[in-house]
This record gives sequence, structure tokens and C-alpha cells, in this order.
Amino acid sequence: MAKTAAALVIGNEILTGKVAEANVLVLARELFGLGIELRRIVVCPDEVDTIAADLRALSDSHDVVVTSGGVGPTHDDVTIKAVAQAFGVRIVRAEAYTTLLRDYYGERLTDMHLRMADVPEGARLAMTQDNRWPTVVMRNVYVFPGVPQIFAGKVSVLRAELASGKRFHSRAVYVRLDEPTLAPLLDRLAAGHPDVNIGSYLTWDKAADYDTKLTVDGRSADAVEACMGELLCGIAPTLVVRIE
Amino acid sequence: MAKTAAALVIGNEILTGKVAEANVLVLARELFGLGIELRRIVVCPDEVDTIAADLRALSDSHDVVVTSGGVGPTHDDVTIKAVAQAFGVRIVRAEAYTTLLRDYYGERLTDMHLRMADVPEGARLAMTQDNRWPTVVMRNVYVFPGVPQIFAGKVSVLRAELASGKRFHSRAVYVRLDEPTLAPLLDRLAAGHPDVNIGSYLTWDKAADYDTKLTVDGRSADAVEACMGELLCGIAPTLVVRIE
Repeated sequence: MAKTAAALVIGNEILTGKVAEANVLVLARELFGLGIELRRIVVCPDEVDTIAADLRALSDSHDVVVTSGGVGPTHDDVTIKAVAQAFGVRIVRAEAYTTLLRDYYGERLTDMHLRMADVPEGARLAMTQDNRWPTVVMRNVYVFPGVPQIFAGKVSVLRAELASGKRFHSRAVYVRLDEPTLAPLLDRLAAGHPDVNIGSYLTWDKAADYDTKLTVDGRSADAVEACMGELLCGIAPTLVVRIE
Repeated sequence: MAKTAAALVIGNEILTGKVAEANVLVLARELFGLGIELRRIVVCPDEVDTIAADLRALSDSHDVVVTSGGVGPTHDDVTIKAVAQAFGVRIVRAEAYTTLLRDYYGERLTDMHLRMADVPEGARLAMTQDNRWPTVVMRNVYVFPGVPQIFAGKVSVLRAELASGKRFHSRAVYVRLDEPTLAPLLDRLAAGHPDVNIGSYLTWDKAADYDTKLTVDGRSADAVEACMGELLCGIAPTLVVRIE
């Protein structure tokens, strides 16, 4: 059975518009590439009760949950506490992580650094070739930091653990037609091809060489190609800018 | 009482990583400027039942909900249908909108264009000086299109209708200190100033002239300034890069 995923982005800085969210795109592309259906993204504030409630709900209804943010030594980093609360466990200091921190910081190590080694009881530490630092995984929840440079490196953990072999197939065609003109054709295709997802995205970029991008996604390459073929039959070749 | 808000972003293209979400930042900044607390952002797929359930939940628990995406004439534009389902009303053709479309498209007008004038029964059409096209508002739900250029123009509707006069006050200081070093000071400030929000954001940008950005937000300027004063007293002036 194909896997589903959800993302929980934790951060007042996103909700107050101080920072542009940057991790969701990286995660969405990675999961799509792995054939995992990202069904839901939630952005919530740095509040233990809210995060814990969201985590419980998302963890129950999806195969995999990835969190972004709230990991660190300061007072507003409450994700680990919330994960523990969500699953009704204590927080314990992970020995293996402590050792890594001692090696790295040496004599500069303080209690504040050691806070990074606090994990929910029962969590495991996932590591890959590419990642010196362990990733906390509690049941089906992967806890990733919010800093985009670190987050992007962490997706190798998902790649190592979740590759399913059931990838999505995706095609796209860029056309010089507007959506009202395309709508009857797309209505017909959507009704006739329930096993694929057809997307229609108009551009407002005046420099673009097309008006609308049409996409066809699905689990079956044959189904995607069949729909794509019918789509291309419905559009005059002179109005097709390019096919991907 | 201060207002709360939620955003519902509708779009398979975000969840599959085809498109980078761009509207949340614009919305978050606008709401923060208006003194409205954005508490939650949800991204969900183009599915009527899912959108309707999310809308009901978000509308019940927040003063204002803004949706992004799924507005248009094609088969994957299901937001209006979902808003109607969420509030248990029919979809009707809005006369005022039809007139606008007739004026704009003239003889080119088709049934597909007229789909744009379909609104949930009981919705109102909000218009501002800056916006030729009306915005559908159903109870506390503002329905915005996903195209970033159009979305950005729509925020004038929020500004016109929701200005509360209870704005947030926000200060920031950029320092050359890492988070483990700052943590004890921030712990103390967070405990002593429950009426403000203190944020700590480390940068990994090697070109940055600071290590950590600290922010203090709150509804009371006095409370923000008191916390900011104490924060600055706790940091050696030579390690302060700039104050905003």
C-alpha cells in the first residue's frame, strides 16, 4: 500500500511573517520522488500543547510525519517536549548523542549544549553516511530542525529509510491557451481518467512563453501516458510550447 | 479582544513540490501588521471533502480564515464548492459578478468564464479601490486565488475590513553569540516576561554579519521595550551587531 505523509512546521517566525518558510518545498519534492503522498502540511506556533495535539492527530492519520523547527537549546525550542507529551513518554538524555556532543565541543561543552541530547523516551537516533548528527525519530515522527541548510541535509534520512519503489510518474505540457478555454477538455479528461491527477496552473509571469501549465501525475506510468496522449490530442500542436 | 486568523492553502501543486508556496509570507506579514494573530496554516489537497472539513474546523476556531488557491474555471478548482459544503449552502451565480465578466470579456464570454461568478449562497462580494475584481467572503472566510500576483493584490481587502488598531509591537537585535550561550539569558527573560514573545533564530548564512537574531513581540509597546531593555543589558555591547 502506498505511503502517506504529513508535515508539521513549528514556528512563530513563520506565522508572524518574519521568515519565509523554505523547508516544505524541499520535503515535498523529496517525498514525491520517493513515491510518498504528502497529504497535509500544518504550521503551528511554538506551544507545547498545540504541537502535541497536532502531532497526535497527524501521526494517527498518516504513515510518516516530518516536523520542522523548534529544535535547539533556547526557550522557544519546544518540539522535543511536545513529541514526548504527544506520545505520553518522559524526556531522557540520549547517551550516544551526549558522546557526540562531548567529542565535538570538548571543553567548551555546557549544559545548554547537552539539551540537544534530550529526546523522548523510546525515540531512536537515525544516522546516515551524509549526516554527522543524529535525527530523532519517535515512532513514525521524524524530528528535523528548522534551519533550511540543516533541514535540506536531513532528507537523506528519509531517502535511506522510506524508499518504497512505488514512485509517481509525472508529465507536463506548457500551452498558449487560457484556463476557460481549456476547462471543457480538462473536465472530460478528469472524468475519464480517475486514476491520475490532472493539474492546471496559469502563469501571470509576463516573461513566460506560455499561458498555462498542465500536469498529469499518477502511480501507473501507463495511466499517465494514456491521459497525456489524450490531452495532447485535444490541443492544437501550434499552441503547445513544450512537453516535459 | 484581539483577533485570531488561520490560512488554508489549497493545492496539490504545493504538496507535490511542483510549486513553491508564496502567499503565506505575504498574508502573515499583512496580518501581523494589522495586529491579527495568525495561529495556524494548513495546506491540503484539491479535494472537496477535505477542504470543507478543514474550513469548518478553522472557521469555528478563528475569527478570520483566508483561503489561497483552487479558484478558477478548471476541474481542479474546487474551493467554492467546498466552502458551500462547509456551510451547508447551495452554489448560486452572483449577478453582480456576471455583469463584471460580461463587461470584461464581451463577445468572448463563455460558460467557462461564467463559472467564476458561481459563489456559495449567502456569500458577499468584497471590493476595494485597488481591486477591480470582487473577493468572495462567506461568513468569516475570505476566498483568495492562489496565483501570487493576484493574491498579493487581495490583501487590500483584509486591510480595508480588518484594521483593528491593536497592532503588534516588534523589536529585534542581531548578535554575535550562539544559541547555547544565549539560552540561560533567554530562559530568564521568557520566565520574567510572560506578556511578550521572545524568538531566537540562528543563521547558517556564512555571509551574515551576526550569529543569532533575537526578536521581542507583544501587544504592549511598554512590555516589549521593558523586555528589550533587559535583553540588551544581558549582552556585551561589542557583541551587538544592530538593533531594529
